[in-house]
Amino acid sequence: MTIQEIQAYLTEFFDSVELVGSGKGEISAPAKIESAGAGEVSFIANEKYLRFLDETKASLVIVHRSVNVADFAEGRSFLKVADPYTAFVFVLKKFSLPRTIAAPGIAPTAVIGEGAVMGEGVTVGQYAVVGDRCRIGAGSIIGPHAVIMHDVEIGEGCTIFPHVVCYDGTRIGRRVVIHAGSVIGADGFGFAPQADGSYVKIPQMGIVEIGDDAEIGANATIDRATMGSTVIGKGVKVDNLVQVAHNCRIGEHTVIAAQAGISGSVIMGRQCMIGGQAGFAGHLELADRTSVAAQAGVSKSFLEPGTALRGYPAQPMRDQLRHEAMLRHLGSMKDRLDELEQRLLKQPHGA
Amino acid sequence: MTIQEIQAYLTEFFDSVELVGSGKGEISAPAKIESAGAGEVSFIANEKYLRFLDETKASLVIVHRSVNVADFAEGRSFLKVADPYTAFVFVLKKFSLPRTIAAPGIAPTAVIGEGAVMGEGVTVGQYAVVGDRCRIGAGSIIGPHAVIMHDVEIGEGCTIFPHVVCYDGTRIGRRVVIHAGSVIGADGFGFAPQADGSYVKIPQMGIVEIGDDAEIGANATIDRATMGSTVIGKGVKVDNLVQVAHNCRIGEHTVIAAQAGISGSVIMGRQCMIGGQAGFAGHLELADRTSVAAQAGVSKSFLEPGTALRGYPAQPMRDQLRHEAMLRHLGSMKDRLDELEQRLLKQPHGA
Amino acid sequence: MTIQEIQAYLTEFFDSVELVGSGKGEISAPAKIESAGAGEVSFIANEKYLRFLDETKASLVIVHRSVNVADFAEGRSFLKVADPYTAFVFVLKKFSLPRTIAAPGIAPTAVIGEGAVMGEGVTVGQYAVVGDRCRIGAGSIIGPHAVIMHDVEIGEGCTIFPHVVCYDGTRIGRRVVIHAGSVIGADGFGFAPQADGSYVKIPQMGIVEIGDDAEIGANATIDRATMGSTVIGKGVKVDNLVQVAHNCRIGEHTVIAAQAGISGSVIMGRQCMIGGQAGFAGHLELADRTSVAAQAGVSKSFLEPGTALRGYPAQPMRDQLRHEAMLRHLGSMKDRLDELEQRLLKQPHGA
Repeated sequence: MTIQEIQAYLTEFFDSVELVGSGKGEISAPAKIESAGAGEVSFIANEKYLRFLDETKASLVIVHRSVNVADFAEGRSFLKVADPYTAFVFVLKKFSLPRTIAAPGIAPTAVIGEGAVMGEGVTVGQYAVVGDRCRIGAGSIIGPHAVIMHDVEIGEGCTIFPHVVCYDGTRIGRRVVIHAGSVIGADGFGFAPQADGSYVKIPQMGIVEIGDDAEIGANATIDRATMGSTVIGKGVKVDNLVQVAHNCRIGEHTVIAAQAGISGSVIMGRQCMIGGQAGFAGHLELADRTSVAAQAGVSKSFLEPGTALRGYPAQPMRDQLRHEAMLRHLGSMKDRLDELEQRLLKQPHGA
Repeated sequence: MTIQEIQAYLTEFFDSVELVGSGKGEISAPAKIESAGAGEVSFIANEKYLRFLDETKASLVIVHRSVNVADFAEGRSFLKVADPYTAFVFVLKKFSLPRTIAAPGIAPTAVIGEGAVMGEGVTVGQYAVVGDRCRIGAGSIIGPHAVIMHDVEIGEGCTIFPHVVCYDGTRIGRRVVIHAGSVIGADGFGFAPQADGSYVKIPQMGIVEIGDDAEIGANATIDRATMGSTVIGKGVKVDNLVQVAHNCRIGEHTVIAAQAGISGSVIMGRQCMIGGQAGFAGHLELADRTSVAAQAGVSKSFLEPGTALRGYPAQPMRDQLRHEAMLRHLGSMKDRLDELEQRLLKQPHGA
Repeated sequence: MTIQEIQAYLTEFFDSVELVGSGKGEISAPAKIESAGAGEVSFIANEKYLRFLDETKASLVIVHRSVNVADFAEGRSFLKVADPYTAFVFVLKKFSLPRTIAAPGIAPTAVIGEGAVMGEGVTVGQYAVVGDRCRIGAGSIIGPHAVIMHDVEIGEGCTIFPHVVCYDGTRIGRRVVIHAGSVIGADGFGFAPQADGSYVKIPQMGIVEIGDDAEIGANATIDRATMGSTVIGKGVKVDNLVQVAHNCRIGEHTVIAAQAGISGSVIMGRQCMIGGQAGFAGHLELADRTSVAAQAGVSKSFLEPGTALRGYPAQPMRDQLRHEAMLRHLGSMKDRLDELEQRLLKQPHGA
C-alpha cells in the first residue's frame, strides 16, 4: 500500500491528515515503533516515545498534529492527525487479513437441529452442533466444535469461536464475538440450604441476553438468570476468565478485565471500567462510568456516576489513597509515639 | 396449574399450607415479585419486600405464615407456609421443563470405547467420546462433545454438560452435575526444581473422586492427586472457574463460590462456605462449617468448627472486623498524636 | 520391581544410593508415607515425617543419607540418597504407565487441513481438527476434540489434551504439554475508546510462541500479541486458569500458579515463582528469580534479581512483613496513645 493510499484512507476518519516528508515508498506492514523497519508504518501517541522520531527505521510514522517532525523527515514520512493512536488502529484494521475460522458454508460434519433457521451466508464449522429451533443471523460464523443448545438466537454478523457453549435459550445480538471456551448460560449458583446441612438446587429458569457489538473473551462464564435474564449490554467488552453470575445486568459499553468476578444480581451502569481480578458482592449497584481498580473488592453500592473505586473494601479513590498514605506512615507514627513516651517518662509524674 | 394444585403440591413438603383469598385463576409461570404479572406466582421471604403485598400484580404470592395478608387478598391469593423461599424453589421445580441436552440414546456420532459398559437409558450426545472400560450409570446424560477418557466411572443419573473433560480414572458418584467446560482430573501442578533452574515433572498418578449429588460449575478445574485421590465430598457445590488443586479433600455439603482457589493438599471440613475469589495456601486444614469471606486469603489451619474467617491473612471475623475498625480510625489516631505533640512542645522541656 | 532394581535405577541419577535392610521383596507401587502398605515404596524428605520411620508399613523408604535408619530396618528396607524427594519423583516416573489420550495414528474422524504436514508417529484423536498448513512434529499427540486453527506449528513430542484451542499462527516448541480446555492465542483485550463512549476493536495481529518443555494447565488463557508475539519461555510452567495477556514475555523456567493474572506487556524474568491469584498491572518488568506471594498485587517494576514480593501493593518481603507486624500492633499503639492522653490530662495545662 502506498503512503498516499494510507493518507487517503485515514481522511475517511479525520478532518486533517497532513503528510510531511517524501511520501515515497510502499508500506507492507504495521509495527511497533521500537522494532519497525523499512517499509513499515508505526505511530507515536505518547510523549515519552518521541525520541523514536529520530531512531526509528519505520518508513512512515503517524504522530499528533502538534509534533514538529520537519527535522526527521529525511528518508521517512509522517502523517499528522488529531489522534494518532486511533489512526493507527484503523491502519491495523486495514492490514489485518480476515481470519478463517471455518470454510464458508455448513460443514458436512456439522449437526443442525430440527427447525433451526440459518440466515444467508452462515458458516458452521466442523463438528459444531446447533440445536433445535435455533436462529442464526446472516453472515454469522459458528466455529468448529461450538455447541449451541436448543432455542438459541444469534444475530447477524456474529463470530462464535471453537468450543464455545451456549446453553438453551441464550439470545445474542448482532456482531457479537465470543472467544474460544466461553460458556454462556450455565446454571446460576443457587441452592437452598436444608435443615440437615444439604442443599436443594434452585432451578435456573432464565436466560442470558447479550447486546449488539459485545465481545466476550476466552473461557469466560456468564450464568443464566434464575428467572428473567442476565443481561450483557450493547458494546460491553468482557475479558478472559471473567465470571458474571446469575441475574446481573451490565450496562452498555462497560469494560471488564480478566478474572474479575461479579456476584449475583449486581446492576452495573454504562461505560464502567472494571479492573482485572476485581470482585463484587451480590445485589449491589454501580452508577454509570464507575471505575474499579484491579483486585478491588466492592462490598456495597456506589450510586454517584463517575466514581473511581479502589482497595478492599473498595472506597472512592481519594479516600483510599489517603488511607494508603496513612498506612505508609504507620512507622513514623510509632516513632513519634515512642518519643512522646520517652519525654513523658523523663518528667516527674503528675508534675 | 390451578392455585389449589399448587397448594396440594406444597403440602407434600410442609405441614401447613394455608390459602388466603379467592383461590381462583390459573397460574402459568413463576416470577420475581417486582415484575410478576397476572397469572403468575411469586413469593416474599424478606421483610423489606412486604411493601409488594399491595403493589404486586401477581395472582398468587407465597408468604410466611406469620404475615397478615387479609387486607391484600382482593383480586389475588396467598399461600402461607413456614418457609416461603423453599416453597417457591419447589414451585420453580414444578414449572421448570426438563432441559434437553441431547436426544435420548447413543448419538450415531458418539464414540464409545472398547469394554465400556453403558447403563440402562444412558444418553450420549453428538460427538461425545467415551473411553475404553468406562462405566456410565443408568439414566446418565453425557452431553455433546464431552470427552470421557479411559477407565472413568460415572454413577447413575448424572448430567455431564457439553465440552466437559474427565481425565482417565476419574470416579463420579450418582446424580452429579458437571457444567460445560470443566476439566476433572488434569495433572496436579507438581514439578521438582533442579540445580540448573529447570524442573522435572512429578508424575500425577492419582485420580479425582466426586461424591453423590455434587454439582460443579462451568470451566472449573479439579486436579488429580499425585498419589491416591483428590476428593470432592457428597453434595459439594463448586461454582464456575474454581480451582481445586491436587490431593485436596473437600468435606460433604461444602459450597465454594466462583473463582476461589484451593491449593494442594488442603483438607476442608463438612458444610463449609467459601466466598468468591478466596484463596487457600497449601497443606492447611479447615474444620467443619468454617465460612470464608470473598477474596480472603487463608494462610493457616483453623480447627475450631464454625469459625468465620475474613481478610488477608484471614483471621476470625471478630478479630478482623476490630482490625478493620482500627484501620478506619488511623486518621483520628494521627490527629491525637499531633495534638499530644503540640501540647508537649508548649511545655518547658524537662519541667 | 525388586528393591535392587530400584537401587540400580536410582544410581543413574545419584552418585550414592545406599541400601540398608534386607533388600528382599517385590515393590508393586509408590505410595504416601502415611498410607503406604506392604510391597509399596515411599519417601521421607521432611524432618517432621521422621516419626513414620517406625510407623510406616512400606516395604521400602527412600530417605536422606544423613538419616540413621539402622534401628528401623527390621522387616523393611531403606535407600539413602542426597535428595530423597527427587529420587522418589524418579521412582514415580518409573511406575507411571503412559497415559493413553488417543489411539495411535490419525483417527478416522479427525479433520486434517490442506497442506498440513504431519511428522512421523503423530497421533490425532477423534474429532480433532487440524487447520490448513499446520506442521505437527514427530511423535506429538493431538487429543480428541482439540482444535488447531490454521498455520499453527507444533514441535516434536508435544501432548495437546482434549478441547484445547490453538488460534491461527500459534508456534509451540518441543515436548510442550497443554492441558484440557486451555485457549492459546485468542485476541488480546484491546479496544480504543471513542468519543461517544463506545470502543473500536484493535486488531490483534500477533501470535503466541511457547518454548520447549513448557507445560500449560487446564482452562488457562494466553492471548496473542497485538503485533509480534506473546512469548512463554522454555520450561515455563503455567497452572490452571491463569491469564497471560497480550504482548507478555515470560522468561525461561518461570512458574506461575493457578488463577494468577498477568496484564498486557508484562516482561517477566527467568526462574520467577508466581503465587496463585497474584495479579500484575500492565507494562511492568520483573527481574530474574523474582518471587511473588499468592494474592499479591504487583503495581510497578522490580528490577533487582531475586526479590521476594508480597502484599497489595506488592513490596519486598522484608518491608511487607514489617508493615504487617506494624498493622498487628495497631491495637497496642492505640492503647499507648490513650494512656499518654490520660497522663497529660492529669497534668496542669501549660504547666
